[in-house]
Amino acid sequence: MSDPELLEDLVAANRILSHQGVFDAYGHISARDRSNKNRYWMSRSMSPAQVTAAEIIEYDLDSNPIRAGENRLFFERVIHGEIYKARPDVMAVVHNHSPSLIPFCNSDAKLRPMTGNAAFLGEGAPVFDIRSVDDEGDLNVCTTAQARALAQALGRHWLVLLRGHGSVAVGVTVRQVVRHAIISETNARQQIQATLLGRVHFLTDSELAYARRAKPKDPDRAWQFWKRKAMGDAS
Amino acid sequence: MSDPELLEDLVAANRILSHQGVFDAYGHISARDRSNKNRYWMSRSMSPAQVTAAEIIEYDLDSNPIRAGENRLFFERVIHGEIYKARPDVMAVVHNHSPSLIPFCNSDAKLRPMTGNAAFLGEGAPVFDIRSVDDEGDLNVCTTAQARALAQALGRHWLVLLRGHGSVAVGVTVRQVVRHAIISETNARQQIQATLLGRVHFLTDSELAYARRAKPKDPDRAWQFWKRKAMGDAS
Amino acid sequence: MSDPELLEDLVAANRILSHQGVFDAYGHISARDRSNKNRYWMSRSMSPAQVTAAEIIEYDLDSNPIRAGENRLFFERVIHGEIYKARPDVMAVVHNHSPSLIPFCNSDAKLRPMTGNAAFLGEGAPVFDIRSVDDEGDLNVCTTAQARALAQALGRHWLVLLRGHGSVAVGVTVRQVVRHAIISETNARQQIQATLLGRVHFLTDSELAYARRAKPKDPDRAWQFWKRKAMGDAS
Amino acid sequence: MSDPELLEDLVAANRILSHQGVFDAYGHISARDRSNKNRYWMSRSMSPAQVTAAEIIEYDLDSNPIRAGENRLFFERVIHGEIYKARPDVMAVVHNHSPSLIPFCNSDAKLRPMTGNAAFLGEGAPVFDIRSVDDEGDLNVCTTAQARALAQALGRHWLVLLRGHGSVAVGVTVRQVVRHAIISETNARQQIQATLLGRVHFLTDSELAYARRAKPKDPDRAWQFWKRKAMGDAS
Repeated sequence: MSDPELLEDLVAANRILSHQGVFDAYGHISARDRSNKNRYWMSRSMSPAQVTAAEIIEYDLDSNPIRAGENRLFFERVIHGEIYKARPDVMAVVHNHSPSLIPFCNSDAKLRPMTGNAAFLGEGAPVFDIRSVDDEGDLNVCTTAQARALAQALGRHWLVLLRGHGSVAVGVTVRQVVRHAIISETNARQQIQATLLGRVHFLTDSELAYARRAKPKDPDRAWQFWKRKAMGDAS
Repeated sequence: MSDPELLEDLVAANRILSHQGVFDAYGHISARDRSNKNRYWMSRSMSPAQVTAAEIIEYDLDSNPIRAGENRLFFERVIHGEIYKARPDVMAVVHNHSPSLIPFCNSDAKLRPMTGNAAFLGEGAPVFDIRSVDDEGDLNVCTTAQARALAQALGRHWLVLLRGHGSVAVGVTVRQVVRHAIISETNARQQIQATLLGRVHFLTDSELAYARRAKPKDPDRAWQFWKRKAMGDAS
Repeated sequence: MSDPELLEDLVAANRILSHQGVFDAYGHISARDRSNKNRYWMSRSMSPAQVTAAEIIEYDLDSNPIRAGENRLFFERVIHGEIYKARPDVMAVVHNHSPSLIPFCNSDAKLRPMTGNAAFLGEGAPVFDIRSVDDEGDLNVCTTAQARALAQALGRHWLVLLRGHGSVAVGVTVRQVVRHAIISETNARQQIQATLLGRVHFLTDSELAYARRAKPKDPDRAWQFWKRKAMGDAS
Repeated sequence: MSDPELLEDLVAANRILSHQGVFDAYGHISARDRSNKNRYWMSRSMSPAQVTAAEIIEYDLDSNPIRAGENRLFFERVIHGEIYKARPDVMAVVHNHSPSLIPFCNSDAKLRPMTGNAAFLGEGAPVFDIRSVDDEGDLNVCTTAQARALAQALGRHWLVLLRGHGSVAVGVTVRQVVRHAIISETNARQQIQATLLGRVHFLTDSELAYARRAKPKDPDRAWQFWKRKAMGDAS
């Protein structure tokens, strides 16, 4: 891989999301190749906490490995390829089952932004129901048809919830998608607590519009903070 | 014991369930002998976090120790023997008091599956009330009659809750029963949070049927993940 | 002190209750002298996590230090003396502010036993309101009159909650009062969660009666478990 | 800086608030100069967990750095300056986004004191809505006008919540503001749980009045306890 910076971020992202409890034994994160938009990079099928640079392999957008002979592959990798096809702006994708998102996957209550850093949740995260594709009973997203429907449910959003399953976050960089995944989990916990107190005041239209046109201030500080904790923890 | 693999898994299971907070000072896990279905293996009466291979002893299905002179025995071991009698398919049994299951033990709300990996909960975990046997006031399952009634309440399920007490999970292997015990606890927490948000959408009939006929994809990754964390923690 | 066993338990109890989050910078535990019922032992005023044998001093039941010159004393020590006067059966007293008990201190909902090991909560823990003595506005129990009224509110119970403040647990041994304090906190968390699920089924009269006449089975295993964790943590 | 004691407390406060989860990658604490009331001290813009004495710099009350060439500055530092102008009694200010306060920032339910050590919350913490100044959509407090309105919303209180954002606590010393920030977070968690149990009994008028006229008993013990844990954790 000729993009060592991206590779380093991708390895760190696996460690960060594991350390923050967004990943457990399962979950995966990919990054689109920055010089060839028809390729993406992701680890072999394994626990994300153990991913090293040597475990990161290259896929085409049909989610086939480029190098012959690769065989330990995530069976849900099709999620990544289909989202990269549908969303040219997206450069990184995370699939996970972080604990506080599950209640929103199975509820009519929408996950909505409590604070400015969660403004990417917009009017509320859509929920994808795999039964919109087929009713086989398998909740995992394994076929191209399922992954395409998931990408469609995601639409222009940055997070989509999967009924009975988990979530998919997307971003314009690895660091941004990590932020989206971690903040979604935190926001969910806080929204659950706020619901208990009575009516909840979410961000206003004006605040959502601002977040769409302005960049977050100093987001990299959070990345460095999470990375230091995750790497220290592992050493 | 002539089955070193089973013994190793049983020791690891004690460490994993302690590390995950499913066991505290109490709780026990047994495995049926794979060459003699009328025998099972379980530690002496002790804190599960400290169990080593030397502490694992052999029982017949009446829960008497095979070797003479054993006397530090779990007083609730009868649970294991009676379940092995009633359920020939069951090869491993866990009894525990994991914290988020207790609310469901004492509630009319049923513990039901939120996600695919909890599909083993089916239509909802049954609740065993010891008063269906006697009203002595002791909530511990100490007599054969009580353990038989518990096995009957379990029926074809993989988890039974005990009113005012805790739970019993069963599996076709040690690794599966560990998964059942850990996922039950996680599912309970998520169901409590989802209840707070409003009506909860549980797995559908089609999804439950699928889980009954299909094997989970790559469940061993979770076992290795938990084991690595539990063993690292202890060293 | 001529009772090294009691002293060792009292030091360990300070460490255990700190490690379990029942104590933070505040909270205190005392033990009545086993050969002179008119004396009790408790540390100087300090963070309980740092208590060693050298910090344990002797008090009479008016909560005056026996040895001249002692001056760093808990200002709420009068709680201990007055309870020892009112309850000859009590041999150990804990005062703490453990987090999940506070909601019950300020609620009309009664803290009631969810499981057999919490049966000591009986029909529900009484709540002491310091305004029954005076309305000075200080919530701390500093005067003999306040401590006497608190002992009266405790009555024959093993736990009393203090409105806007915390709790006092009592026991027939140091080990038992530690169990009472830890299990009260756990039970509170579980009762809060169960309340969220709907109507809660607490222990029955028959189960409460059983607990009053029977001893808990193997309670010392919990003590050894907690001690190992607390001492390992500190070394 | 000619006040090494204050500097030492300010560094410790950054570590304590990080260790207690009040700060994450974000949040800042300042102290007013004790010999020149028109100056205050705060770190450069950075993760608070990493602050050392060398990172603490001096500001005037318009929040401009005294020494030329300083450029890595918190963009929300104007909060500190405007509060020092409006409240001559305040000697330390904390801005943070601690997790359990967010639900109260977005709710009509008031954060009110559950226990004596939270009496500084008084009749309930006010909530500042940045739309009272402008409706640009940025929730961050970046302009003097916004910071002045925030100081006005704070009024004579010791804590003000910011809708969709976080909180600002103030104190007469660094140690007191640390206590205010930590106890606010704890109180929020306990009030959420109590709300779930039914009607909540908060401190009475008499108890609030007492807290206004009396000093807390031995508050420094908490500071030393938190410092020991935070410093041990980091070494």
